[in-house]
Amino acid sequence: MIGLEDVRAAAGVLDGVATRTPVLTSRTLDGMVGASVHVKAECFQRGGAFKFRGAYNKIASLDDDVRSRGVLAYSSGNHAQAVAIAARLLGTHATILMPEDAPTAKVDATRGYGAEIVSYDRWTESREDIGAQLASERGLELVRPYDDPLVMAGQGTTALELLDDVVDLDLLVAPVGGGGLMAGCSTVAKGVRPEMRVVGVEPETGDDTRRSLQAGKRINGGVPRTIADGLQASEPGELTFEVNLRNVDEIVTVSDAEIIDAMAFLFDRLKIVTEPSGAIGVAALLAGRIDAQGGRVGVIVSGGNVGVARFAELLGRD
Amino acid sequence: MIGLEDVRAAAGVLDGVATRTPVLTSRTLDGMVGASVHVKAECFQRGGAFKFRGAYNKIASLDDDVRSRGVLAYSSGNHAQAVAIAARLLGTHATILMPEDAPTAKVDATRGYGAEIVSYDRWTESREDIGAQLASERGLELVRPYDDPLVMAGQGTTALELLDDVVDLDLLVAPVGGGGLMAGCSTVAKGVRPEMRVVGVEPETGDDTRRSLQAGKRINGGVPRTIADGLQASEPGELTFEVNLRNVDEIVTVSDAEIIDAMAFLFDRLKIVTEPSGAIGVAALLAGRIDAQGGRVGVIVSGGNVGVARFAELLGRD
Repeated sequence: MIGLEDVRAAAGVLDGVATRTPVLTSRTLDGMVGASVHVKAECFQRGGAFKFRGAYNKIASLDDDVRSRGVLAYSSGNHAQAVAIAARLLGTHATILMPEDAPTAKVDATRGYGAEIVSYDRWTESREDIGAQLASERGLELVRPYDDPLVMAGQGTTALELLDDVVDLDLLVAPVGGGGLMAGCSTVAKGVRPEMRVVGVEPETGDDTRRSLQAGKRINGGVPRTIADGLQASEPGELTFEVNLRNVDEIVTVSDAEIIDAMAFLFDRLKIVTEPSGAIGVAALLAGRIDAQGGRVGVIVSGGNVGVARFAELLGRD
Repeated sequence: MIGLEDVRAAAGVLDGVATRTPVLTSRTLDGMVGASVHVKAECFQRGGAFKFRGAYNKIASLDDDVRSRGVLAYSSGNHAQAVAIAARLLGTHATILMPEDAPTAKVDATRGYGAEIVSYDRWTESREDIGAQLASERGLELVRPYDDPLVMAGQGTTALELLDDVVDLDLLVAPVGGGGLMAGCSTVAKGVRPEMRVVGVEPETGDDTRRSLQAGKRINGGVPRTIADGLQASEPGELTFEVNLRNVDEIVTVSDAEIIDAMAFLFDRLKIVTEPSGAIGVAALLAGRIDAQGGRVGVIVSGGNVGVARFAELLGRD
């Protein structure tokens, strides 16, 4: 488990390193939701998503001799870029295991941040086996994407900043994939303001955390088909689940079409670029999945790594 | 002519009304330009562009009895929305003259802000004649898009905020259409820091201000064909030209293709939505049109009203 003090410690580590991202508002959004909505825009974070916070907090915590041997991550997404950037800032080397069919743009971006890419065939090879072999051969330290107290604490600084900027929130809304962002942020919400309601949002095809929280135990729902590629965890993390079971009041779900509507709204009205996973919290508010009437709502837009081509393809309007 | 004190007065009028827009940075952008670049993101301004500043400052300055009779503007673009929002905030009524073939989205947005739309056939009717008739019949006050000292002073608050946030800029880069934004901002630049270089950017097909400044007199270049629909002025304003002749060191031009590249860059890397006119300053920096090496550069991204469909069409990558 983690506590508010762990997140405060992470904030100290990240001070001057992570971007203190802006909180945006829109009268149109307020009108549509019927509440005062505060959008914490992590698309402006280093690497384009909140993931940098956790990765940096973790790598910074390693003993010098451990860190100097390098770090390892499995990811074809935002966690890969986050680990690559954090490793370079902390003077060490990142090795990233990516499937051979990962998008070239993401591979190039991660390599551009100085990481070494090791690719594998995701249909015939086990990334865990390859990772374990690399870790033992090279003495690399694994940086998990969410199931690590230091990663959770790092992600929680997102909510710490939001609650610092907007002190009297009634409701916090955040995306849930593996649960790291939610674990950190719900710890802050309940720690700073216990009466605050905390609502997570999942794709309707990937509601493993919703079902797990209802069952009181982790349920594996398989890898969901959804455009929200950052939320394709098949089950909650072990550690994140323990935290979220205590802190999260409710999980709601949205469809891919509702996510696309939210991406278009955020583009047209807030002028920000969001990836599907990033827009899911706003999607839930716009689709009326969350009772927010008359309240003061904080919602985390978790990332903006979508690319022009994919954005145009998803929104399909030209 | 206007002076720094006029812009400071406008800042007082706009305090708590206009959005104090963020200044964004990107290590990637710095690397590509070879300078420290500070992006003043007016896409986050009310109405999606800097135009609100000037419109509000103008309408707020009117005597109560004049203002109460209502205001009039000619525009199918950002000025229309700006006047509509400002009029509503100031408790008066806006009438906007728009060509019959104006994009439905812009008409709807302007009407959504409470304005009355009067349409005309731009091929057979004169908007000046219709406007003059409306103004006299209804006693409306015309709010010009740029050629007015109070409008110029309002737009200048953009640079005032930027120079307040980043005190030691060497170079200011801004789009030039009718010249109102540049007149206000160059007044601030030269007033606060006389050694600062001020560079304007025009579409290569619409370089009327560049040619006018070279000639020392206003030259009408006709309405240019360019995707930068906010910069289609055929000649500099009378008043803006006088100010810019004194303050602007250089005008550079960029192609539509370079503007599109900049829009894609700002989308992918800064995660902001820009319209073609808004991205033109960054386009000039990325295309190497401006000698910025090693300097500290402020560049105004003037607006983000592009819409998903038009964005996808322009970037044509799906």
